[in-house]
Amino acid sequence: MVWNTNLRWRLPVTCLLLQVALVVLFGVFVRYDMDADPHWIDKKEAENSTSDMENEFYYRYPSFQDVHVMIFVGFGFLMTFLQRYGYSSVGFNFLLAAFGIQWALLLQGWFHSYYRGYIRVGVENLINADFCVGSVCVAFGAVLGKVSPVQLLIMTLFQVTLFSVNEFILLNLLEVKDAGGSMTIHTFGAYFGLTVTWILYRPGLHQSKERQSSVYHSDLFAMIGTLFLWMYWPSFNSAVSNHGDAQHRAAINTYCSLAACVLTSVALSSALHKKGKLDMVHIQNATLAGGVAVGTAAEMMLMPYGSLIVGFICGIVSTLGFVYLTVRGPGQGLRAGESGGLYVPDRRWGAP
Amino acid sequence: MVWNTNLRWRLPVTCLLLQVALVVLFGVFVRYDMDADPHWIDKKEAENSTSDMENEFYYRYPSFQDVHVMIFVGFGFLMTFLQRYGYSSVGFNFLLAAFGIQWALLLQGWFHSYYRGYIRVGVENLINADFCVGSVCVAFGAVLGKVSPVQLLIMTLFQVTLFSVNEFILLNLLEVKDAGGSMTIHTFGAYFGLTVTWILYRPGLHQSKERQSSVYHSDLFAMIGTLFLWMYWPSFNSAVSNHGDAQHRAAINTYCSLAACVLTSVALSSALHKKGKLDMVHIQNATLAGGVAVGTAAEMMLMPYGSLIVGFICGIVSTLGFVYLTVRGPGQGLRAGESGGLYVPDRRWGAP
Amino acid sequence: MVWNTNLRWRLPVTCLLLQVALVVLFGVFVRYDMDADPHWIDKKEAENSTSDMENEFYYRYPSFQDVHVMIFVGFGFLMTFLQRYGYSSVGFNFLLAAFGIQWALLLQGWFHSYYRGYIRVGVENLINADFCVGSVCVAFGAVLGKVSPVQLLIMTLFQVTLFSVNEFILLNLLEVKDAGGSMTIHTFGAYFGLTVTWILYRPGLHQSKERQSSVYHSDLFAMIGTLFLWMYWPSFNSAVSNHGDAQHRAAINTYCSLAACVLTSVALSSALHKKGKLDMVHIQNATLAGGVAVGTAAEMMLMPYGSLIVGFICGIVSTLGFVYLTVRGPGQGLRAGESGGLYVPDRRWGAP
Repeated sequence: MVWNTNLRWRLPVTCLLLQVALVVLFGVFVRYDMDADPHWIDKKEAENSTSDMENEFYYRYPSFQDVHVMIFVGFGFLMTFLQRYGYSSVGFNFLLAAFGIQWALLLQGWFHSYYRGYIRVGVENLINADFCVGSVCVAFGAVLGKVSPVQLLIMTLFQVTLFSVNEFILLNLLEVKDAGGSMTIHTFGAYFGLTVTWILYRPGLHQSKERQSSVYHSDLFAMIGTLFLWMYWPSFNSAVSNHGDAQHRAAINTYCSLAACVLTSVALSSALHKKGKLDMVHIQNATLAGGVAVGTAAEMMLMPYGSLIVGFICGIVSTLGFVYLTVRGPGQGLRAGESGGLYVPDRRWGAP
Repeated sequence: MVWNTNLRWRLPVTCLLLQVALVVLFGVFVRYDMDADPHWIDKKEAENSTSDMENEFYYRYPSFQDVHVMIFVGFGFLMTFLQRYGYSSVGFNFLLAAFGIQWALLLQGWFHSYYRGYIRVGVENLINADFCVGSVCVAFGAVLGKVSPVQLLIMTLFQVTLFSVNEFILLNLLEVKDAGGSMTIHTFGAYFGLTVTWILYRPGLHQSKERQSSVYHSDLFAMIGTLFLWMYWPSFNSAVSNHGDAQHRAAINTYCSLAACVLTSVALSSALHKKGKLDMVHIQNATLAGGVAVGTAAEMMLMPYGSLIVGFICGIVSTLGFVYLTVRGPGQGLRAGESGGLYVPDRRWGAP
Repeated sequence: MVWNTNLRWRLPVTCLLLQVALVVLFGVFVRYDMDADPHWIDKKEAENSTSDMENEFYYRYPSFQDVHVMIFVGFGFLMTFLQRYGYSSVGFNFLLAAFGIQWALLLQGWFHSYYRGYIRVGVENLINADFCVGSVCVAFGAVLGKVSPVQLLIMTLFQVTLFSVNEFILLNLLEVKDAGGSMTIHTFGAYFGLTVTWILYRPGLHQSKERQSSVYHSDLFAMIGTLFLWMYWPSFNSAVSNHGDAQHRAAINTYCSLAACVLTSVALSSALHKKGKLDMVHIQNATLAGGVAVGTAAEMMLMPYGSLIVGFICGIVSTLGFVYLTVRGPGQGLRAGESGGLYVPDRRWGAP
C-alpha cells in the first residue's frame, strides 16, 4: 500500500521537481542570443548597416521547424507500429523530448554558448537541443515497453548530459567534423539505448501475442513517422551547416543518399523474404539509414554520385543487419519490446 | 416533405451564395499588396535598390505555411478523438476555415489594409486571416456535434465579423499589444464558442455510449493534431512580429513556455488520476495552453526563464481547470459533444 | 517453379540494376550547381559582394520541403482510403518517387541544366524533380491495385522520360508559360495513367467487396494526404516562380483558388447526393482541382477575384465530372482498383 502510494506520486513529483530545477537554472544562466536581443542587434545594425534579413533567424528557422517535426512527429509515430503501444510511443516521446530540450539548452549552452556569465540562446541552440533529444529518441526505441515514464526521464537526464560531454570531446577537443551528427547523435543514441536495454533485460518473460493481432492501421501510423523523418532529413543534416553553399550542399547530398537507400532496402527486403514479400519495418528502418550514414560528410564535396553510393551501401547493410544480427539493434529493440517487456502495453494511460 | 426538401438544399445553396458574394466583394475591393505587384515593386526596387530577398514574402512565408498547417491539420485532427466524429471534425473544420479565411481577408482588410480604394492583400494578410479562423476553430471545439454545417457557416460569418471589430477596438483604438493573439484569438474564440453552446444547450438528452467503444486509433489521430499545433506554435506567435530580433525572440519564448507546460500537465494529469494514470486529453489540452498563455507577451523581453514560468503555471492551471470546473470549457465542450448532441455522429457523410 | 523463382527475384534485381545505373550516370554527368559549390560561389561573392542570403537555397528551400511533403505524404496518403490498400498506396508511392526523383534529375538536367559537360544540380532541380514525380503519382492513382511494383518502376522510367521530353517541347520549343505545371504535370499525368489503365484493363473480373467493409479510419488517413496537398499547394505553384513579387503573387492566387474550390465542391457534393449527404471522396478530389486549375496562370496578374472565379468553376466541374463521367478519371481509377484489380490487396507485404 505504501509502495503503491509512493509509485502513484512518483511521476508527478519527478516532473514537477525537474521543471522547478529548470526554471531556477534558466533564471540564473540563460539569456537571449545577440540576434534575439534588441540591445545588441540595434548596435550591430547601426555599425554594419545590415538588413534584418541577415538575422540568424531567417537562415535557420525553416530548418529548425523541420527538425522539430522530425523529433516530435517523426520519432513519436515511428514506433506506433507496436500494437497497443501507440499512446506510450507518442506520449512518452513527447514527455521526454519536452524535458530533454530544456536540459540540453542548458548543458550545450555551458559548453558552447557561454559568454559574459550567461548562456546566450538563439535559434541555432534550439536546433542543437533538438539534435541532442534526437539521440534520446533513438535510445527510446530500444527500451520502449520496458521502462516507466520516470525511468525515461532519468534516462533522458543522464543521456543528455553524456551526449553533451561526448559532443564537447568530439567536436571541440578532437576537432572532429560531424555535420549531420552521425556519430554524436545516432551512434551514441543507439549504443546508449542498447546499454540501457541490456541492464534492464530479464530472460524468460513470456512471449506476448500482441503483435499477431491486427496491426494494419498501426503500421500506417508508423509510416507517418517514417515519412516525416525521411522527407525532412535534408533539413536535419543541413540545419547548422555554414551559411550559403555548405548548407545547400548538405541538403543535396542527403537528398541523394536517402533516395538511393529506398531502392536498395526494398530490393534487400524482398530478396531476404522467402516468398519475395516486402516488410514495412525494413522500409522504415533502412530508408532512414541513408540519412544517418551521410550525416558526418553531408556538407563535404561528396558529389551527388558519392551520396548515391553511400545510400546504396546503407540500404543493403542496414537491411541485412536487421534480418541477420541477433543482437538487439535499435530496430530489434522495438520488437523486443513485445517479448521481454516489464510493462503491459499502454497501461499508464487511462481516462479520468 | 417540403421541409425535408428544403433542408436537403440548404447546404449547397448556402455555400454557393456565400462564395458568389465573396467573388463579387473580392472583385470590387481586393487587389495585390505592394510586395506582390510588379508595378509597385519595380518602382520600390529602383528607388532603394533593395534585393528581392527584402520582399515580405521571404520574411513571412515559412511561418505562414506553419500556421496554415495548424489551422487545417492541427485543429482539424485535434477533435478526431470523439469516436465516429472524425469526418465531421476534419471535414467541417476544412469547410468553415476555407470560408472563414476569405471572409476574414475582406473584413480585416477593410480595417487594416485599405489603401487608395482597395484592400491590398499580401502574405501578412493571409497569416492574419488564418489567425482569425483559428478563433473560429476554437469555438468549433465547443459546439462540435451540436450544429449542422450550415449553422457552422453562419457562426463563422458572425464570428469573423465580431473578431475583426474586436481586434480593431483592442489593437487600434485601445492600442493593446497582443502578438500571439491570446486575447483576440483564443479568449475571444473560447467565449464565443461557449456562448453558442449555451444557446444551443438542451438538457435531458440521453448519454451517448459512443465514447466507451474503442477510441484507440481516434486518440492517435488526435495526437497528430496536437503535435502539429504544439510544434508550430512558435511560428504562430512570431508570424507577424516585427522583422529581426522581435520575431526571433517570440519564437524562443513560445518554445520555452510550451516545453515547460508539457511537464507540468503530465504531472497534474497523473496526480489527479486516482491510480496515477495519464489522460491523453489532458496532454492534448494543457500542453497547448502554454502557447496561448505566452502569446500576448511573446515578443517582449520575457527572458527564457520567464517563459518557462508562464508554461509551468499554465500546465497546472489548465489541467486543474479541465478536471474540476464543471462549466463547459472549450475542452469540455468537446466531450459534451457526446452527451448533449443534437446530431448523430457523422451522419452527414455518405457515399454516392 | 522456375517461373515462380524468377518472379521472386524480379523486384530485387530490378531495384538494384536501376540504382546501379543511376550511380554510374550520376558519376559521369552530375555535379553541384554554382550556388552549392564553394569554388564558384566564393568567386561570385568576391565579384559582386553579395550576401550568403542571396544563395538560391534561401529563396527556394522552404518551398522545396513543402513540395516534398506533398509528393511523399500528400500523394502517398491520398490513396489510403482504399481499404486494405494502405501499405501499397504509401509504400509503392515511396518506392516509385524515390526512383523517379533520381531519374528526373538526370533527364531534366540534360534538357535544362547542362553546362560545360555536366548537369549542375541545385535546389531548383530538386523541386523540378519532385514536380516530375508528382505527375507519376497522379498516374499511379489510376493504376493502383492493378500493377506490381516492378511494373510501377517501369512505368516511372517511361513516364519521367516522356514527361521531360514533353516539358522540353512545351516550355522551350513552344515557349508556353506553365508556372504551376497544370499542363506538364497534372494533365500529362492523368492521361498517362488513363492510357496505362486502358492497356491493363481486363473486363469480367469479380467485384471486390473490400470497399464495403469499415473504411472509417482509412478515410481519415486519406484526409491527411488531402490536407497536406491542399495546404502546401501555394508552395507548389510558387516554388520555381521568379524571385520577389512573382513568387508572392503565385502563392496568393493559389490560396484564393483553393479556398473557393472547397465551398463549391461541398455544395455540389451535397446537391448531387440523393439525401444531401457529403462524400469525403468528392472533397478530396475536387478541392485539389482548384490548385491544379490555377497552376498555369498562378504567377500572372490574375487578381484575387480572378483566382476565386477559377476555384469556383473548378469545384463545380470536377465534382460533376467525378459523379457523371463513366470513363475512368484519375479519381475513379482509384475506385476501379477494387473492381478490376489483377492483384489482391496488399499481398506484397509480409513479415519476415
